[in-house]
Amino acid sequence: MSKIILSINAGSSSVKISVYSATQGEPPKELAETQIDGLTSPPAQLKYRRNGQIIYKDKSIDDAKIHSQNDAFTYMLDELINDKDFDAITKKEDISIACHRVVHGGDYDSPKIINKDTYHHLELLTDLAPLHNASALEIISFCIHDMPATRNVAVFDSQFHQTLPEHIRTYPIDLETARKNGLRKYGFHGISYSFVTRSVAEFLGKEVKDTSLIVLHLGSGASACAVKGGKSWDTSMGLTPLAGLPGATRSGSVDPSLVFHYASDVGKLSPSSTQSLHISRAEEILNKESGWKSLTGTTNFGIIASSPKPEMKLAFDIMVDRICHYIGSYYVSLHGKVDALVFAGGIGERSDLLRKRVVEDCACLGFAVDGELNGRKIEGVVQDIGAQGASHRTLVCQTDEQFEMARYCAVDAELFN
Amino acid sequence: MSKIILSINAGSSSVKISVYSATQGEPPKELAETQIDGLTSPPAQLKYRRNGQIIYKDKSIDDAKIHSQNDAFTYMLDELINDKDFDAITKKEDISIACHRVVHGGDYDSPKIINKDTYHHLELLTDLAPLHNASALEIISFCIHDMPATRNVAVFDSQFHQTLPEHIRTYPIDLETARKNGLRKYGFHGISYSFVTRSVAEFLGKEVKDTSLIVLHLGSGASACAVKGGKSWDTSMGLTPLAGLPGATRSGSVDPSLVFHYASDVGKLSPSSTQSLHISRAEEILNKESGWKSLTGTTNFGIIASSPKPEMKLAFDIMVDRICHYIGSYYVSLHGKVDALVFAGGIGERSDLLRKRVVEDCACLGFAVDGELNGRKIEGVVQDIGAQGASHRTLVCQTDEQFEMARYCAVDAELFN
Repeated sequence: MSKIILSINAGSSSVKISVYSATQGEPPKELAETQIDGLTSPPAQLKYRRNGQIIYKDKSIDDAKIHSQNDAFTYMLDELINDKDFDAITKKEDISIACHRVVHGGDYDSPKIINKDTYHHLELLTDLAPLHNASALEIISFCIHDMPATRNVAVFDSQFHQTLPEHIRTYPIDLETARKNGLRKYGFHGISYSFVTRSVAEFLGKEVKDTSLIVLHLGSGASACAVKGGKSWDTSMGLTPLAGLPGATRSGSVDPSLVFHYASDVGKLSPSSTQSLHISRAEEILNKESGWKSLTGTTNFGIIASSPKPEMKLAFDIMVDRICHYIGSYYVSLHGKVDALVFAGGIGERSDLLRKRVVEDCACLGFAVDGELNGRKIEGVVQDIGAQGASHRTLVCQTDEQFEMARYCAVDAELFN
Repeated sequence: MSKIILSINAGSSSVKISVYSATQGEPPKELAETQIDGLTSPPAQLKYRRNGQIIYKDKSIDDAKIHSQNDAFTYMLDELINDKDFDAITKKEDISIACHRVVHGGDYDSPKIINKDTYHHLELLTDLAPLHNASALEIISFCIHDMPATRNVAVFDSQFHQTLPEHIRTYPIDLETARKNGLRKYGFHGISYSFVTRSVAEFLGKEVKDTSLIVLHLGSGASACAVKGGKSWDTSMGLTPLAGLPGATRSGSVDPSLVFHYASDVGKLSPSSTQSLHISRAEEILNKESGWKSLTGTTNFGIIASSPKPEMKLAFDIMVDRICHYIGSYYVSLHGKVDALVFAGGIGERSDLLRKRVVEDCACLGFAVDGELNGRKIEGVVQDIGAQGASHRTLVCQTDEQFEMARYCAVDAELFN
């Protein structure tokens, strides 16, 4: 029997819901997708698409009630229920499973069913990533209390990286403190890397376990992953999503001393932190007030990539340099046994200029793009953009975290039943 | 006319003095070398070698007066003056130039003459690296006041890296704060990289300006440098020596958020900081209480490299992984145009096991060692350890920071006269 699954993805200023119909053991089918953006820069904007039809495209919502991610979630839930032309959901009880993207999953290596009794497990994780887990937790808490007929599943961005080998996940710091406080490399964007790895293996006609890739998930948050035999071998984010590549407002890796030279109050709690969210001002600066926006004034990487202005060029060159840094590093770490370099994420999928420069700068490793293929609109799930005769393939993958989350639920009997 | 130059290198628990005789425009000749180790783990140990003769080899000094780097400096200075068989220095006035290794040189791109009037320039730099510049400054201050006949020259570990291109030295953080507080990548170990680049170019029979290298300076402090056309193009240390590779007690690059999850008091000033040294507890933990000592209990990398114990193997594997990370990254950044991979520094020069593993792990880039050459004692300044037929050469260079400092003084008319 088919069930309705909601995939809920709460970001720092947006919430996305995808609605699927799923039968156990089969890939879920998407029925609708809705999203509210701009939570931190009102008015919020609503997108809604169902049965292949666009219902709203960036409709401004002046509703003064939308302040939080959970407000956005309940607003969209009401839209879905009240849409007379969308009969898959006519009441809350039609939703069998709500699966929630949770950024930091600590030591969890698979999705977890969350109920009143196990909710505190998630709260414990929030100490490691208050800035990243809080909005998902607010929505999960709402669903547990207000949607008793729906089963809640947490899917973790870190779970794909549980396979990181010990010498890669260990920081060379005091072992006792590391053990006690859970200080190690976790890695994130794993829902995306899981989707990409499976999709690319299928595209290449290989078993997942025989597929080794360098994957770049490039969006307003950006990271890289070395996939060895289908499993995460290394990734650029660390204990938190701050480490590694720069993002729209995130510094990425900087000298760990830097922030102590930034201002005298960085060790203090941030003004936006509450007693239950221990965010220091330093973490807020490096996560929210840095990145390419701090260099250029815009978070729009498309503008940066095509502008001749010196500050835009600098931000572009920094991004290319740091990305190539990880490609070189992971190429060595995989001993050159790389089936493909894969671009994914909003920027990875849309910026042919970035892809061109990155691959050109990695020519010495045997990567090359075909200018015509790279310039085309990306249409399939996986598209080849590599030049003929290159030693390694270069691909673009349109990643789909929502689908991957629903898929986890649909293929796992424990989560589905 | 020849002059006597002292090269003074004050580390975190040791001070080394090398004595040279120099004629302007010619390479200085070493006359003597003396060193006190173990300042932080008494009793301090004295080494003294002159005219090719070993006078003391790890002689314990029970003198209760040696507490600081400057105490060690004045102790050795007295030894040199009072040694009846060393006639190059019979009184302080025989020393024409004292050149001092200063770790953080801010924006300085060359050595600077320091006197009472310009000493405050160095004090300003100390804000950026209190943990690293303080001991040198104490000795410089002593020399200015107590050795009026001697000219003092500061040679900076960062000066070689003034050529880092803008997109590599810029951190993606708030530009105004970065400018105001001098927050950028500076890089260190530059005196060593300068020596290595010149020596390797000579060994290869190339002009320095045509020489491109990946150099690893591996000691209790460790870093990597991409040298492009004789100049520093990228390096692993950053605003301070903390970033990049792990060291004996240094974490190297970790998630910049990590330290806020370490303990609740890390934002505070360290107990050992005084009003003039603004060291936070966090910087102290990551610089002094981390690294391979925190994983294994020993700072001796030779023991780590040859032990089968799991914690030793883990520390070794971490070091190999992080080193290979930079080799892959710099290989790409140099577009594969690499004349040689060069190992230098105490560990780079002595650990054939480390060299073997690192080069084997980078085989996919075309590096290979010759087992027999690699196993030999390193005797010349530069020794080839590469396998025949490899695409790129692999070398060991016995770096000599003391010599390089004296050389700067001897070849520069302004510093010498």
